[in-house]
Amino acid sequence: MSVKDCVFCKIVTGQIPVTKVFEDDVVLAFLDIGPISDGHTLVVPKQHFEKLHDCDAGLLSQVGSRLGKIAGAVAAGMSCDGYNVLCNNGRAAGQLVEHLHFHIIPRNLGDGIFERWPAYKYKQGLIETIAAKIRKKF
Amino acid sequence: MSVKDCVFCKIVTGQIPVTKVFEDDVVLAFLDIGPISDGHTLVVPKQHFEKLHDCDAGLLSQVGSRLGKIAGAVAAGMSCDGYNVLCNNGRAAGQLVEHLHFHIIPRNLGDGIFERWPAYKYKQGLIETIAAKIRKKF
Repeated sequence: MSVKDCVFCKIVTGQIPVTKVFEDDVVLAFLDIGPISDGHTLVVPKQHFEKLHDCDAGLLSQVGSRLGKIAGAVAAGMSCDGYNVLCNNGRAAGQLVEHLHFHIIPRNLGDGIFERWPAYKYKQGLIETIAAKIRKKF
Repeated sequence: MSVKDCVFCKIVTGQIPVTKVFEDDVVLAFLDIGPISDGHTLVVPKQHFEKLHDCDAGLLSQVGSRLGKIAGAVAAGMSCDGYNVLCNNGRAAGQLVEHLHFHIIPRNLGDGIFERWPAYKYKQGLIETIAAKIRKKF
């Protein structure tokens, strides 16, 4: 399934050229042309889904089974100290292209990327209230 | 497989209590006690692997098939505008517990989390050199 005007669908079908690092029947992995670190890779399921929770479990299973291998190759190729795998869902979360994708971002100690982690504590009782709201949605 | 002194293995075996939102034979999902947004959830495979690329494809497939459902329930329960799914691998990438885990982070427009995205452009020719390094590692 390819969606008209979707940039990643156009990449998958070859209408827009990219620098590929891996491809099979399920996913295409290519270098982000606006990286936040060298080797920043995007892993895109070939089938169009907008968000992670839109995607059927069978396809996510196939994507999941490939993510480790691709991340391992990116990490080994870049000889980096670590990496983030990040999937932004919705504009509020930084998703700019509305076709499900995973960023693999090579990291090195002290590189200053994603330094901010504004953790806090829940007020008493709130964690249970929130968990109950989420549990109801399964 | 449970690893002595691993906090997440202790959580999986019930030695450390957590506020669960989902559990089956493959994964446990629970609320982070130091959230960066309300409903911040951790999804942990029950089997101990340190990093994504250490994990066998079969288990990653099983984890992947569950991630969408859990993310959907978190998003619906929190009525948020979007969410990030983030997997930090290695201390340089912010991994504090050395047991593979995925953060599901509910997001709302203008919440100011992960605002920094220090994108740049590759110098001419560098993208091909980097892709070749990665491709060699498959």
